[in-house]
Amino acid sequence: ARPRVGYYFTGKTGSQVLTDKIKKLQVKDFQSIPVVVAENVSVYDAIVTMFLEDVGTLFVVDQGSILVGVLSRKDLLRTSIGKQELSTIPVNIIMTRMPNITMCEREDSLIDVAQKLIEKQIDALPVVKLTEKGIEVIGRITKTNMTKALVSLAIDGLV
Amino acid sequence: ARPRVGYYFTGKTGSQVLTDKIKKLQVKDFQSIPVVVAENVSVYDAIVTMFLEDVGTLFVVDQGSILVGVLSRKDLLRTSIGKQELSTIPVNIIMTRMPNITMCEREDSLIDVAQKLIEKQIDALPVVKLTEKGIEVIGRITKTNMTKALVSLAIDGLV
Repeated sequence: ARPRVGYYFTGKTGSQVLTDKIKKLQVKDFQSIPVVVAENVSVYDAIVTMFLEDVGTLFVVDQGSILVGVLSRKDLLRTSIGKQELSTIPVNIIMTRMPNITMCEREDSLIDVAQKLIEKQIDALPVVKLTEKGIEVIGRITKTNMTKALVSLAIDGLV
Repeated sequence: ARPRVGYYFTGKTGSQVLTDKIKKLQVKDFQSIPVVVAENVSVYDAIVTMFLEDVGTLFVVDQGSILVGVLSRKDLLRTSIGKQELSTIPVNIIMTRMPNITMCEREDSLIDVAQKLIEKQIDALPVVKLTEKGIEVIGRITKTNMTKALVSLAIDGLV
């Protein structure tokens, strides 16, 4: 019989309780709002949008709001030191496009996504939902969200 | 008398053990190598260095290797869409300079630094050491390091 003390020994150490808790964190608990641009906007306008919205990654969508590309601050900086006129180059020339986009879903493990960000050396992933029309962007998950997750683990012991 | 079971109840819950452990993490356990440029190099050369070294933040030092400024990818992107010739502007015109640089030391709490990155909306801090000559840069701590810390907590239960 279990002792009547309001707790009992699970056979797990403090570390195991910790890792189990962290592994259960999901993307949806930490994701941010996505910022998107149309595929025909200029690189110049995309850079301005990045500053106005204060994000490090933009998602490029077609007329039907379907994901077609990703633009990082690094992509835009690389282009901006080239010889081209930024206001005449459309973003679809320089964006990362399908099938090279790394994506995730709301219910995915936050830690799996954190590992993808590290492996692929990128700052953010689009959070997507597969619909009849194609892949819709519903969120954005970044290294800033991961930093916030770390802080909330330290402060609350969890969210 | 304590039961002879190899463990005993500390009065702490799993969550407390977790938060205590995370709060003890230090900058030195996760920091990266700093990448520095001299204050007279051009913005163009700084951007090239950023790509070659594959970092998001550069630290600017004087002839005595003392920290005088910080350059983010955002600072460089902002300048690159201006009208100026990037190869003729020295970085000390556009860098964030003292006393506006947020810094940390090796023994600082990783979580305190994570909170600073979030509050100040920056990607990296220089890890510094105060010497007779001034403030020397000895490391760099970034949101990537925070993401790696989160993953190592999930995998190892700690480092």
